[in-house]
Amino acid sequence: MIIVLKPDATEKQIDHLLDRLRELGLKSHISTGQERTIIGVIGDDRILHNQPLTAFPGVESVTPILAPWKLVSREFKKEGTIIDVGGVKIGDKKLAMMAGPCAVERLELTVGIAHEVKAGGASILRGGAYKPRTSPYSFQGVGREGLDYLLEARKQTGLPVVSEILDTRDIDLFLEKADIIQVGARNMQNFELLKEVGSYDKPVLLKRGLSATLKEFLLSAEYIMSRGNRNVMLCERGIRTFETQYRNTLDLSAVPTLKELSHLPVIVDPSHATGKWNLVAPMSRAAVAAGADGLLIEVHSNPECALCDGEESIKPAKFKELMVEIKKIAQAVGREL
Amino acid sequence: MIIVLKPDATEKQIDHLLDRLRELGLKSHISTGQERTIIGVIGDDRILHNQPLTAFPGVESVTPILAPWKLVSREFKKEGTIIDVGGVKIGDKKLAMMAGPCAVERLELTVGIAHEVKAGGASILRGGAYKPRTSPYSFQGVGREGLDYLLEARKQTGLPVVSEILDTRDIDLFLEKADIIQVGARNMQNFELLKEVGSYDKPVLLKRGLSATLKEFLLSAEYIMSRGNRNVMLCERGIRTFETQYRNTLDLSAVPTLKELSHLPVIVDPSHATGKWNLVAPMSRAAVAAGADGLLIEVHSNPECALCDGEESIKPAKFKELMVEIKKIAQAVGREL
Amino acid sequence: MIIVLKPDATEKQIDHLLDRLRELGLKSHISTGQERTIIGVIGDDRILHNQPLTAFPGVESVTPILAPWKLVSREFKKEGTIIDVGGVKIGDKKLAMMAGPCAVERLELTVGIAHEVKAGGASILRGGAYKPRTSPYSFQGVGREGLDYLLEARKQTGLPVVSEILDTRDIDLFLEKADIIQVGARNMQNFELLKEVGSYDKPVLLKRGLSATLKEFLLSAEYIMSRGNRNVMLCERGIRTFETQYRNTLDLSAVPTLKELSHLPVIVDPSHATGKWNLVAPMSRAAVAAGADGLLIEVHSNPECALCDGEESIKPAKFKELMVEIKKIAQAVGREL
Amino acid sequence: MIIVLKPDATEKQIDHLLDRLRELGLKSHISTGQERTIIGVIGDDRILHNQPLTAFPGVESVTPILAPWKLVSREFKKEGTIIDVGGVKIGDKKLAMMAGPCAVERLELTVGIAHEVKAGGASILRGGAYKPRTSPYSFQGVGREGLDYLLEARKQTGLPVVSEILDTRDIDLFLEKADIIQVGARNMQNFELLKEVGSYDKPVLLKRGLSATLKEFLLSAEYIMSRGNRNVMLCERGIRTFETQYRNTLDLSAVPTLKELSHLPVIVDPSHATGKWNLVAPMSRAAVAAGADGLLIEVHSNPECALCDGEESIKPAKFKELMVEIKKIAQAVGREL
Repeated sequence: MIIVLKPDATEKQIDHLLDRLRELGLKSHISTGQERTIIGVIGDDRILHNQPLTAFPGVESVTPILAPWKLVSREFKKEGTIIDVGGVKIGDKKLAMMAGPCAVERLELTVGIAHEVKAGGASILRGGAYKPRTSPYSFQGVGREGLDYLLEARKQTGLPVVSEILDTRDIDLFLEKADIIQVGARNMQNFELLKEVGSYDKPVLLKRGLSATLKEFLLSAEYIMSRGNRNVMLCERGIRTFETQYRNTLDLSAVPTLKELSHLPVIVDPSHATGKWNLVAPMSRAAVAAGADGLLIEVHSNPECALCDGEESIKPAKFKELMVEIKKIAQAVGREL
Repeated sequence: MIIVLKPDATEKQIDHLLDRLRELGLKSHISTGQERTIIGVIGDDRILHNQPLTAFPGVESVTPILAPWKLVSREFKKEGTIIDVGGVKIGDKKLAMMAGPCAVERLELTVGIAHEVKAGGASILRGGAYKPRTSPYSFQGVGREGLDYLLEARKQTGLPVVSEILDTRDIDLFLEKADIIQVGARNMQNFELLKEVGSYDKPVLLKRGLSATLKEFLLSAEYIMSRGNRNVMLCERGIRTFETQYRNTLDLSAVPTLKELSHLPVIVDPSHATGKWNLVAPMSRAAVAAGADGLLIEVHSNPECALCDGEESIKPAKFKELMVEIKKIAQAVGREL
Repeated sequence: MIIVLKPDATEKQIDHLLDRLRELGLKSHISTGQERTIIGVIGDDRILHNQPLTAFPGVESVTPILAPWKLVSREFKKEGTIIDVGGVKIGDKKLAMMAGPCAVERLELTVGIAHEVKAGGASILRGGAYKPRTSPYSFQGVGREGLDYLLEARKQTGLPVVSEILDTRDIDLFLEKADIIQVGARNMQNFELLKEVGSYDKPVLLKRGLSATLKEFLLSAEYIMSRGNRNVMLCERGIRTFETQYRNTLDLSAVPTLKELSHLPVIVDPSHATGKWNLVAPMSRAAVAAGADGLLIEVHSNPECALCDGEESIKPAKFKELMVEIKKIAQAVGREL
Repeated sequence: MIIVLKPDATEKQIDHLLDRLRELGLKSHISTGQERTIIGVIGDDRILHNQPLTAFPGVESVTPILAPWKLVSREFKKEGTIIDVGGVKIGDKKLAMMAGPCAVERLELTVGIAHEVKAGGASILRGGAYKPRTSPYSFQGVGREGLDYLLEARKQTGLPVVSEILDTRDIDLFLEKADIIQVGARNMQNFELLKEVGSYDKPVLLKRGLSATLKEFLLSAEYIMSRGNRNVMLCERGIRTFETQYRNTLDLSAVPTLKELSHLPVIVDPSHATGKWNLVAPMSRAAVAAGADGLLIEVHSNPECALCDGEESIKPAKFKELMVEIKKIAQAVGREL
């Protein structure tokens, strides 16, 4: 931790600050420059993260040296984490393709799409039973029975299932019925939910919040891991910017940056990131070229009648074509499909 | 709803779309311009919000005519809503001053600050028992007993209490112990929590999410109201932008805009918005000048040792001074303190 | 300057870096912590700003200690700068009210508005002869003769004139005909223009770019001052965010922050910031309450037919009313109108 | 153009508006719904772009139907534009690789890097003689003679040269010495400069502004084209967001979107977009996978001593490796290198 003092900081203010650092059991080292006095604080920066040091009179700025996370960091664990979900290995050389409808609607439709995405090359089935919708008047998902539709689809196709949890009270249901629990963008800082899903071994797909920095994203993953759950995958799904041509702005620089900072697998969701079906293919290719470990893609057999996000869903035939393209990109970057 | 067709939309595509609109029970009116054909859809726009019309071939863009909310709107209810919290009227001519520590820490400290903010001119006591913190290693609040400290402070000072809920499972606790339930910025789109607090009459202070548009903010308030709870107040607390000099960017244009679009009271939180104690006074003055119905201010008797957000807390003496300044601004805009 | 080394930085890498620092004539001081080695560099940080130190192998991050500007800073000049424009003192206790049409259109209209804003309480006349418009098909201003209209209005009313320059080739024209040269938001980083207006004594009103940090804003002012021109005023006019209810998001926290960091006067433009005439009054009040030294307001006698930005222009009668309100706010914060 | 009226708009207000539309020579069609009255305006929307219709009493909102640009649009010109620069075809199947130092520093260095990037696979040499720098104390470029260094490099290698213009007064110099004139991000809305470079046939590389929407970006290109210059290429180089891990956020969704909206070639600059040399390779791969027509990459033989942006420059050997990777991605998407 580096503390920079104001040019007019008094002796008394400095002593007061040094006393406080001593109380906290930290060593400090003062260096007096021409224009500023600087205090270097030696010891674990993390103790200091709880201290409002800029509230001290005479302090100009405070700069931490260490990253505020530990368990998620590449420094803590050098080799990349591989998560095994019913035999599908996420984070390994082979890319993980998760596909399916935005929302689960009816049993036959769900099972039908599951067969189609499997035929196209998907290894995991996605589908929302509970849907977080901006408006209370939008379709809110079929709820509990939606998870049963997904289970039936899994039974018939063998595809493990990822579905989004919205409420801590549903944890038992998801532990029983989902293979991967998704924590959505809007809940990335729903810390009680993070603590809850962190208390089990069940794999978690954590989506980046619309306005979350990578630092905050990693700290949310740290919440889950600090509770004991090591099976976390990170999902970039677009951030909010001023641009209105697409629903969000897909931030692909996040992919190599997260891979450098953390050992966790990184998945990209081009469907929610863009909100436009015709951008799904180019952004899927780009994500794999940037180093993503997998994709999360919305596929619907009849997007025009989808009850949720039909605008961004591609049809099964289009998904199949896309997988052919992705295979070539994967090979170009030394990965497999 | 106005649907603009692509210049190369075919007859067949147009008929297909018109069929669908007819199925939905809507009337449509086609007008063919030189460069574009436009379909005006007559009836309730809200039915259409669930329809992925841009997924139809031949559609270029879709523009809704009506706002997607109803109960929160000024059009629905002309006169401003006034919420009575233990005799304190929020939304009335007199401004509501909510003050207290970011986090409740210890009983005596809480009670002491309560007495001080009351003496300074506060009418409501704020304090967090459960704290949503970015890092799992930061102080997470004292929990349940923090609410008891607030109750004791209320008993001694008569100030009603506002405190933040984080988990649907805590609803009974908050119904019993808080006078206003705060839903924080990070939970503005935790829809299950919105539904829960919407199911009772207990006043709710809903904070704007860091990257929430006013449209999304009002739709979150609509979630609460659509469940039956009419006692909702909106709180602007800064949005996330590229600027790093302050924690967030206080968006004061939101104040008159929300007052125009909605009948709900609008509160401003200059402490979280700026993250800097020395910006609290100018931004408080500006908020009142812009038309806010109240302020939410962090006050701590010893910010240097505060376990949460000491950087942005002002001391009781400073709060007292600020209330004197605010009084003058209030009078200048025809309000009272 | 604080350089933090990567945990795996080698001796050789460190020596290589130290050699470079020595070559640059800087002293460095190494401190080896448990998890990181840190190099404190003593001397003028500004020399280092040109050095790509993060390009050195083994370097994790580089943090400057000193602000990158000098002449604009409050540290360099304690007392606030007051700029005298034909007897109107900007930055003094009395607020500077600049008002007039967005674009100068015709002689009589310009002179008429000038008389009306003077009667309302304005002390400076604004008006654009050259207009930077997003579309090449929008009205581009009347050009050179617009400056003559403004001169005639000045002759009749005595109001000094502020007008925007777009091209370095027009500098002589503006030196001759304007009392204050405005550098607009879109040209805040048109460095050749900054250098040009910096080469004379003529007062400059520098507007903050739509996505400029305060740091960049102050560095643009530093460009002007470093060429010798000390008569610079800063103008906050809204920044670009995700919110679409208003054209830009007025960042009023910038006002006290700029006043703290710099000695230059700070003006606020609520018209361009919001793009909506009905937000001009509340945001004007808020700006003054936040500590602005003046306002820049668009006034047009017939906004419906204005050739530029009619949406955000208020009528003379409304301007007069607003000045009455502003006077009260000014008094509440110890200023005058 | 669709005009939505307020629910309480009066007959008189509506008549007043209709009169104005008639004056402008436009036909209008009223449709009265249950909750809103809507006026559809028939004719060229572009006439209306200059009209402040929301300034009319009774108007709630105004929605244009047509895009505000013409010459840049794919609708206006179906086939993609191919620009021939000294035999290098930009926008064709073969990707255009532009590489070289951020700033031109010395003759030998420039010529040396030119030979190296040519050997690596570049087809165009980039280098800045005039540099737009945030701080007046940073290296500002060597100026005029820098263009001569580039000319010498072109003479020796045959690579055409792209370099950035900062000032309208330098147009003759650039017409003479550069093969492509670059208009940088900070000057994307320096409209006088756009008009100037639009007055010749010399190819222009227009960079997207840090906070420019695609709409504004295309309108800036339209400025150039509307003056007669048809040789415009668009360059995505990152936008400003809240994320601070990289200098800007590369917006790759812009690539397919611009290709859909416009016929102009789209280039991507991963160096400025990220500001980090280690992100240049993954973002280059991703850009090509997303459909870019070329890349603009900073290469420096000694980044540690580069006078500008050394942090983001890659060494010639790394560039060579990258071209091998890019070749594979290019083939995967049906392009060539």
